[in-house]
Amino acid sequence: MSEKTPPPPGYMPQTVETLGAYLAAVQPLRARLGGDPAAWRIEEVGDGNLNLVFKVYGEKEGVAVKQALPYVRLVGEAWPLPLSRAHYEHMALSEQARLSPGLTPEIFHYDENQALIVMELLEPHIIMRRGMIGAREYPRFAEAISTFMANSLYFTSDLALTAEKKKAMIAAFAGNTALCKITEDLIFTDPYRIAKLNRWTSPELDTYAAQWREDGDLKVAVSQLKLKFLSQAQAMLHGDLHTGSVMLTETDTRVIDPEFAFIGPMGFDTGAIIANFLLSYFSQDGHEESPGARDAYREWILATTEDIWTLFDRKFRANWIAQPTGDAYPPDLFQGALGAARLAAERNSYMQTLWHDTVGFAAAKMIRRILGLAHNIDLDWIKDQKLRATCEARALLLARDMMVNPQNYPAPAALTQAARRMRGVTPQLNS
Amino acid sequence: MSEKTPPPPGYMPQTVETLGAYLAAVQPLRARLGGDPAAWRIEEVGDGNLNLVFKVYGEKEGVAVKQALPYVRLVGEAWPLPLSRAHYEHMALSEQARLSPGLTPEIFHYDENQALIVMELLEPHIIMRRGMIGAREYPRFAEAISTFMANSLYFTSDLALTAEKKKAMIAAFAGNTALCKITEDLIFTDPYRIAKLNRWTSPELDTYAAQWREDGDLKVAVSQLKLKFLSQAQAMLHGDLHTGSVMLTETDTRVIDPEFAFIGPMGFDTGAIIANFLLSYFSQDGHEESPGARDAYREWILATTEDIWTLFDRKFRANWIAQPTGDAYPPDLFQGALGAARLAAERNSYMQTLWHDTVGFAAAKMIRRILGLAHNIDLDWIKDQKLRATCEARALLLARDMMVNPQNYPAPAALTQAARRMRGVTPQLNS
Repeated sequence: MSEKTPPPPGYMPQTVETLGAYLAAVQPLRARLGGDPAAWRIEEVGDGNLNLVFKVYGEKEGVAVKQALPYVRLVGEAWPLPLSRAHYEHMALSEQARLSPGLTPEIFHYDENQALIVMELLEPHIIMRRGMIGAREYPRFAEAISTFMANSLYFTSDLALTAEKKKAMIAAFAGNTALCKITEDLIFTDPYRIAKLNRWTSPELDTYAAQWREDGDLKVAVSQLKLKFLSQAQAMLHGDLHTGSVMLTETDTRVIDPEFAFIGPMGFDTGAIIANFLLSYFSQDGHEESPGARDAYREWILATTEDIWTLFDRKFRANWIAQPTGDAYPPDLFQGALGAARLAAERNSYMQTLWHDTVGFAAAKMIRRILGLAHNIDLDWIKDQKLRATCEARALLLARDMMVNPQNYPAPAALTQAARRMRGVTPQLNS
Repeated sequence: MSEKTPPPPGYMPQTVETLGAYLAAVQPLRARLGGDPAAWRIEEVGDGNLNLVFKVYGEKEGVAVKQALPYVRLVGEAWPLPLSRAHYEHMALSEQARLSPGLTPEIFHYDENQALIVMELLEPHIIMRRGMIGAREYPRFAEAISTFMANSLYFTSDLALTAEKKKAMIAAFAGNTALCKITEDLIFTDPYRIAKLNRWTSPELDTYAAQWREDGDLKVAVSQLKLKFLSQAQAMLHGDLHTGSVMLTETDTRVIDPEFAFIGPMGFDTGAIIANFLLSYFSQDGHEESPGARDAYREWILATTEDIWTLFDRKFRANWIAQPTGDAYPPDLFQGALGAARLAAERNSYMQTLWHDTVGFAAAKMIRRILGLAHNIDLDWIKDQKLRATCEARALLLARDMMVNPQNYPAPAALTQAARRMRGVTPQLNS
């Protein structure tokens, strides 16, 4: 947790009462919303853990307003968190919008002093996690998220950027330490030790939780991942790319909330989305109306998991081939047919390493959602505690093997096949 | 090469005529030098490639003065280079002095606007490279340089620093891009392609130079090292740690000139010193009075090469054990005898990876000194061109295998043994 720094002079958290006047004073916003500001309908809808979020409906259009609070909303003032996260979110969102047009909400207004971003109101989009709990298929999602990741990761890496631009970007995000620290603690550390903030389905998972804290192989593996997170400045990450950071319809996908952005290891983003697909997969037993009712949906999840990687891999390579504009792998050194063959082989090796990282980071993200502070509603909403623990234990067991034995998962199909097998396992629960 | 930016207002390159008045105006320097400033003796002694360097002798004491020029001194105004390098040098020097007391020159004065550092005059120290050309043994060097590296690398890594401090340090050095770019181009790129600045002993090494530019394995390997240099933010590097950046006597060692400092892969520093020892080893045939006359000195070089790594390895681990204060490998996760054993095994693995990196970066540094722009006087001073080319070709051949097959060198003894064997090889020279 970061130290408390006083908010800047003039900073005021908005309320449904004050926000109308604030927006009305910004002429382009007033025009966009249209009509009499007094008639605007304003709702506070923040269901996340950190910020205030409002929906504002004018006569012509609506907008969404996100404002950072100087503390973690979920916990309160006892856990201060700097307002600067709005600055990093705005910077990342701008960069992502430039690199993947149409895959993020449009930004209408940014107020650094108020840590406030006004953006496109995404309707009728819903949070993807909720859609997946409702067994909704999103046939265009893999296409969209793979484009988002292939562009935002490739074009902010040393494969596309000069060292000078890359270092400027590293410096620009280096101050986002408080948000990185949340990840470092809650994902890479706390689930593997006794920590006040940990929680899990108890008593059912007590033995697993204890085993996870005593598992030397696992603790070495998660520490290696943490070291990578701390020291590998590979590309600009979204930093929190789970299915709660996606709003979508069947035809339109938007990635939101990049306030955890910084320059880190790519596998952390690709792993996040895959982890959340696997968690959703294991959670479906807790949501289906009758056993087997969601068999087809489960298969959609696994097929989409494979597609996400396959399409990402293809698009990332295509970017590399089309725009090798970075300082890494200088084209001068790989001229002619022989050079092209070498570089193609090197791309294979690069993508294999990235897949390996993806599997490891995915595992870390799965474990933290079951043994750490912040859980997913995919699992938390399963009311039958024993059933929930069964789903969670399967995810835990798969994640443990992914992290310790990533070589068991040379490709996405090996991972989805292992998930299917694991769903047949009956975990040993405490009672 | 970086773009030309005008020097700040008031910046004036010093001369032997102007420097006395400048120093006399700074009271502590005037007092340190002592006596009548008009009587101070001032010599310009810069034999490096980049900067002005003066020795100033007062009545009481002497000082050294280093001032950056807005261009590369060796080349002239056609190759601009930002004055900010003095800022990074001063920052790195301050940090190194704090971490390894007595192993850097003491700083007396820093003038950011003039890009000028006044520091301890190191006498009767000489540049280590010159001492080694003269076959001088430095029995305390391995002890000193291993301490310098173990401290400056360990205590600026994630093993010792919190993520917040580490990221602040990354940001503080992120602007030193022009100096990093010199390394990226001259070490990792140009020797492997046709580049105007390349030079080598010709025609003797023409075939080797052409082979090196066509060697796919080598170009992949050096590109992997370059990518590490671009993206692995492991610790604060000196950035140019060769035997020309060391001034010493038999009993006192000082590391100078850290203007290439930034947060990068540790093996780049450890590799630099080992590369320069190996180059010196191969060069001795060109300097010995009669064949075999320097056999004992050659063995001193190789024994010291091994000692440098062995002592560095021991001290780095000792730092890790004594002060595990960083965010990586949280002590909480490795409690008790089992935890300690795990962490010990992980330290082995970490040091093995670092040795592997060291071998690779050392190879890159050896090759650039023979096929790239900037050569070493160890080799350049060998007047017999064929003999020089023979020494150089042996270094090239060893370096090529080090870079492509680092697994052939599991420990320093394997490397020194390979150097001995390579000295028996008669290279194929053009004539």
